[in-house]
Amino acid sequence: MKRSNESHITLAHGNGGRRMRALISEIFIRYLGNASLDPDCDAVTLPFPHAELLFSTDGFTVDPLEFPGGDIGSLAIHGTVNDLAVSGATPQYLSLNTFIEEGLEIAQLTRIIKSMGCAAQACGVKVVAGDTKVVRRGEGSGLYLATSGIGVKATTQRVAISQIRGDDAIIVSGPIGDHGTAVLLAREQFGLQGELKSDAASVVPITNTLLKFSGLRFMRDPTRGGVATVLHEIHRSTGLGVHLQQAAIPVRDEVASVCEILGYDPLYLACEGRVVAVIDQTQADAALRALQRLYDGREAAIIGNLSSHTPYVMLETPLGGQRIVEELEDDPLPRIC
Amino acid sequence: MKRSNESHITLAHGNGGRRMRALISEIFIRYLGNASLDPDCDAVTLPFPHAELLFSTDGFTVDPLEFPGGDIGSLAIHGTVNDLAVSGATPQYLSLNTFIEEGLEIAQLTRIIKSMGCAAQACGVKVVAGDTKVVRRGEGSGLYLATSGIGVKATTQRVAISQIRGDDAIIVSGPIGDHGTAVLLAREQFGLQGELKSDAASVVPITNTLLKFSGLRFMRDPTRGGVATVLHEIHRSTGLGVHLQQAAIPVRDEVASVCEILGYDPLYLACEGRVVAVIDQTQADAALRALQRLYDGREAAIIGNLSSHTPYVMLETPLGGQRIVEELEDDPLPRIC
Repeated sequence: MKRSNESHITLAHGNGGRRMRALISEIFIRYLGNASLDPDCDAVTLPFPHAELLFSTDGFTVDPLEFPGGDIGSLAIHGTVNDLAVSGATPQYLSLNTFIEEGLEIAQLTRIIKSMGCAAQACGVKVVAGDTKVVRRGEGSGLYLATSGIGVKATTQRVAISQIRGDDAIIVSGPIGDHGTAVLLAREQFGLQGELKSDAASVVPITNTLLKFSGLRFMRDPTRGGVATVLHEIHRSTGLGVHLQQAAIPVRDEVASVCEILGYDPLYLACEGRVVAVIDQTQADAALRALQRLYDGREAAIIGNLSSHTPYVMLETPLGGQRIVEELEDDPLPRIC
Repeated sequence: MKRSNESHITLAHGNGGRRMRALISEIFIRYLGNASLDPDCDAVTLPFPHAELLFSTDGFTVDPLEFPGGDIGSLAIHGTVNDLAVSGATPQYLSLNTFIEEGLEIAQLTRIIKSMGCAAQACGVKVVAGDTKVVRRGEGSGLYLATSGIGVKATTQRVAISQIRGDDAIIVSGPIGDHGTAVLLAREQFGLQGELKSDAASVVPITNTLLKFSGLRFMRDPTRGGVATVLHEIHRSTGLGVHLQQAAIPVRDEVASVCEILGYDPLYLACEGRVVAVIDQTQADAALRALQRLYDGREAAIIGNLSSHTPYVMLETPLGGQRIVEELEDDPLPRIC
């Protein structure tokens, strides 16, 4: 932020990429920093006597509020449940903040909160605290939500970015970019239509399956910024390169078509029900088979590996060419989650 | 909501009064309800093995973002810290959600987050989880914040609205309405100026002092909707009447003047650093003296008592007249916290 002499917030400060990282480290970490606050964590471990709790929070501004496969309410449950799950916790309790714009239709609010209740029940979590604010017309956009979640640590295993080793395998639990594309199609501005549904769902069955493998190093849900952003985080944090096989990355035909028409890359599109996992090479095939036995993991794939031989996040094309996967700079799709 | 056949959200749904209660019970509790979710609690007790934790959340939309005596950042710390404190907990950890509007000046954001860091340090709490969303220009109002907090139960004593008895005394820890009035004066639209500062602060010293009294029944911080709204909550929940002595209620001259000019009643104006406490009559004087020894409690007062002889929240004027204190219907001041 200092380098570019910016004086006002832009949408790019919210895109999950480089400028957002600068905003967070130069303002939030600078003034709120403490030993427990780690911007690279989806959930933080809180030391209490006789218990290890995980705590996580997420905000939701998706536009439109309802889209094929979900809505802002179910998304606000799944988002925080998934942050706890990929951190190795069993999600238990959520708090809910609502910022409602004056003029929101009560029937729509009711549908969204009802959907939230169904999602919470399906995930086995309880909403136990809440606050509601109403803001004037023109000072919001229908509805913004925030959820904070508490989970109990489900494993003694250390699953963290620091555990990643030089030639670990990278697994993705299903096709990428469904959520981003489904939300995009639901926006009339693009004039496109389709049958695609968001992948928004709890990843607890996926993470519980992966946690059975002692070679599991790290899990993350590739939301804002997509799979590419998770891989860049790994690259930045470990110093290791990433070698991806383009042909191995599961992408639905409809997602590929929309990306081709609009010039997007599915690697940067948000998923809301997928996991990127890093696991010891020797256990990768067994973990993949275990995932593929789950309904939500039936299209899981090994998409590449860590590598000390490349200093980049690198994609190998089906014809054997290589291209660098750059870090996200400008947000292709704001308000996707 | 059904009775009035409303179909869209109005500002009154956010005012802390009757219509907000209807919104919460008819939508939020209906679909998210569970044994732990109590809309009358400031913080919920979470049963974990070997520990009792309290969990609370609050959203902040104050306009303007900075005002004499505080800003939205320090308010977001104090608000959630205070909800935990009045529930009998020692606040420990906070999560933070920010919804930033495109175009916010980075210098202002920096001041606010810095102030937040100072407030957190002064309260002895750590911000350990966070999420940032940037929304388009015209879809927010500068900055909205939400904080969720975890505290450890600081007492074995049961401090709850259900503990209140027929002739308990009501204490307020300091002058009322300072926060509401200070924010109002900071809005240019009113064309008023003044020296008044918000009372926004941690109430932990107040609640720790009150918790030493075995006769303490209940504590609440009178934020949105003010002292009148807390008293109506007690009245509704216990079925007991409330008898207030107008002359005993501490109100600063400047707050009284502004209320006279604009036609407000200080009983409905928000405080952000005060406690309304209900305590056994026989311990009320001792508790009052203990509070008055604290800097923030030096203007504490016994303002009335519970009563089974009146079915209302009733105010006795200095001349011996009586008037009913009605429940808040339309919000005099939206976006005060």
